[in-house]
Amino acid sequence: VIYADYNGSAPPLPAVREYLRKRLDSDLFANPNAIHSMGQRLTKGIEKSRSIIAEVVGCYPDQIFFNSGASEGISHIISSVLNKSASSKKIVITSPIEHIAVSAALNHFKMNHNFTIKYVELDLNGVVRPQSLEKLLRENSTSVSLVAIMAANNETGALQPYVEIASICTKFGVDYFSDTTQLIGKGEFDFLKSGMDFAVCSGHKIGALTGSGFIIAKEPTKLHSHIFGSTQEHGKRGGTQHYLGIETLAVALSDFNDKKTGLKTLQEARLDFESQMKSAFSEVIIIAEKAPRLAGTTLIGYPGLHGQAVQIELESHDIFVTTSAACSDNQPETSEVLKSMEIHEDLGRSVIRISLSYSHGKAEYSLLVQALKDAYNKLSKIHSY
Amino acid sequence: VIYADYNGSAPPLPAVREYLRKRLDSDLFANPNAIHSMGQRLTKGIEKSRSIIAEVVGCYPDQIFFNSGASEGISHIISSVLNKSASSKKIVITSPIEHIAVSAALNHFKMNHNFTIKYVELDLNGVVRPQSLEKLLRENSTSVSLVAIMAANNETGALQPYVEIASICTKFGVDYFSDTTQLIGKGEFDFLKSGMDFAVCSGHKIGALTGSGFIIAKEPTKLHSHIFGSTQEHGKRGGTQHYLGIETLAVALSDFNDKKTGLKTLQEARLDFESQMKSAFSEVIIIAEKAPRLAGTTLIGYPGLHGQAVQIELESHDIFVTTSAACSDNQPETSEVLKSMEIHEDLGRSVIRISLSYSHGKAEYSLLVQALKDAYNKLSKIHSY
Repeated sequence: VIYADYNGSAPPLPAVREYLRKRLDSDLFANPNAIHSMGQRLTKGIEKSRSIIAEVVGCYPDQIFFNSGASEGISHIISSVLNKSASSKKIVITSPIEHIAVSAALNHFKMNHNFTIKYVELDLNGVVRPQSLEKLLRENSTSVSLVAIMAANNETGALQPYVEIASICTKFGVDYFSDTTQLIGKGEFDFLKSGMDFAVCSGHKIGALTGSGFIIAKEPTKLHSHIFGSTQEHGKRGGTQHYLGIETLAVALSDFNDKKTGLKTLQEARLDFESQMKSAFSEVIIIAEKAPRLAGTTLIGYPGLHGQAVQIELESHDIFVTTSAACSDNQPETSEVLKSMEIHEDLGRSVIRISLSYSHGKAEYSLLVQALKDAYNKLSKIHSY
Repeated sequence: VIYADYNGSAPPLPAVREYLRKRLDSDLFANPNAIHSMGQRLTKGIEKSRSIIAEVVGCYPDQIFFNSGASEGISHIISSVLNKSASSKKIVITSPIEHIAVSAALNHFKMNHNFTIKYVELDLNGVVRPQSLEKLLRENSTSVSLVAIMAANNETGALQPYVEIASICTKFGVDYFSDTTQLIGKGEFDFLKSGMDFAVCSGHKIGALTGSGFIIAKEPTKLHSHIFGSTQEHGKRGGTQHYLGIETLAVALSDFNDKKTGLKTLQEARLDFESQMKSAFSEVIIIAEKAPRLAGTTLIGYPGLHGQAVQIELESHDIFVTTSAACSDNQPETSEVLKSMEIHEDLGRSVIRISLSYSHGKAEYSLLVQALKDAYNKLSKIHSY
């Protein structure tokens, strides 16, 4: 079995499973906000986890706010900034390749609170053109409340120029939120050096427990309550903490930090895989090929074939991939991200996404080469649609 | 060790731990929204869990919306109803004994959206007087958008007349949200029979995984997005599902359903404990004594003693209790709930909360009797403050 849908969700890391097995044998379960010693021990565990995570992601511990995952973080950040923005600042700048958690939240403010959404331009590899952001900010200098542009695209893996974007936002004094769901725990990242104002992380994308995650906020006072409650998370996020999830976030990010040299091996094996596929089939196209990409992400198409048919062929070899983002995986048409990159339907409907992690390399990709060659050979002969 | 803080948080049930141990040995981890068979198997697991839970709580499966817990559910429900309420309906009716997750959310709408909060009256046992709700509704008949009154109080354990409340709300055509966090999985409950419009559940309160929970909504269309995303949970709650948490919610509620005859044993042992304490110390007072209460909750006070001192004494016997709600446990003064019941400071500051579960009975309470007698004897001699 090769599970190659890490951008969709990463299975719990071996280190996380081991941690949880031991954890389930312990008796340390309570409400971390209780005054008794069990509660206090859990609080210490949460704060220790916060410090470990802060070290890995390059921020101060008190800039981290634990929650249920990136979608919550995204709604929380966008609501915090837009609900408090002056009535003269009704413009949000974003990209056309954001995850639906971002675009749906922004759309809500467009439909219900009179916000206008403006989009930056992409280059041919699906990478945001910073000059187009600068132009938009210059033209609307005092009316923009937020720039929301992701750090790494979930479908193509294309890394976005977030440091340059952050420095442009700083120049114009506009808050910059970057959806870092696909970057944190998957690639080099340092929050303070990035210049971002807000970032997010989902536990299930990095091999921690489902239902866990966090926000990083450069200036926590800009964060308002989205889930109300008591003093948990400095009053920014009510509700009893998902302490088991929090502990596994620290385990997972420590594991990443210890093993991130694996990213180089992964990248080399991925590039080798892509070039083997291209030399075997002249029709094959790697989307966003020339962009700097996440080490283990390939969006590969064979125009005229049907992505779902390719996916099913691979599944018959026990290889699990998707045709686009998991959450819109059941729509048999070209994804919004590819449409915004002006990719033709014939290619767009043929793609599959292969996404692996820093623990993978040559072994997985050579099995993938063989299986994908078989699939393409079979399907191109029978003209699947 | 006796962990007697189940109202604060319930440790994962033995059945849940066993389930998770096996689950961690499996390879079934993926994004439930992915089209591949692993994703589809997880979706089936989520839907099977939803059906099991619906059966136990007495509702239809499509009335259940999974989320991160009761605090999220409460903010989600209150925001859904109040954000959409007509400008002529700016009154919310609630009780003075709500959990801070409810009162803080309502306060937000008071401070930021011009809502007025009106409070029902309590009887001497901390139970809402339904007549006072009827009076408030009659006086403000067309201006009330929501009634938010809990089902069981977390501190005193007092059950509230939620069926009567629901029928009054129905008569006046006002939505009724009841915070059922302390009732579901802890006492008899049937959502459809209750007449409520909205209810909530937190996994960690019932021995399921932390960071899990759900909303029950009689008419799901009344629920709007609070966390934006794709089509998860019928578009009502974005974000990759915390499927491990969801599976454990089904395990925990099945366990409750199988063993709820234990509630009778628990209640008898609790009443026996209370009467033993009262006969040993004439000063001892059981708060909300005459109210129908959760089977395993006792809020007990010895006027003049200091609740924290009692709590620490018990802890030296490896018995873990709190002095009030966990989330405000570190405030050494009379809780808001007790203040609203007009309980004198001397008594209010002396209380400890003992809360056990349906798996407990005589054995735990006899150890508690002994330890609490020792604590009261010791502390009443030295006049702890």
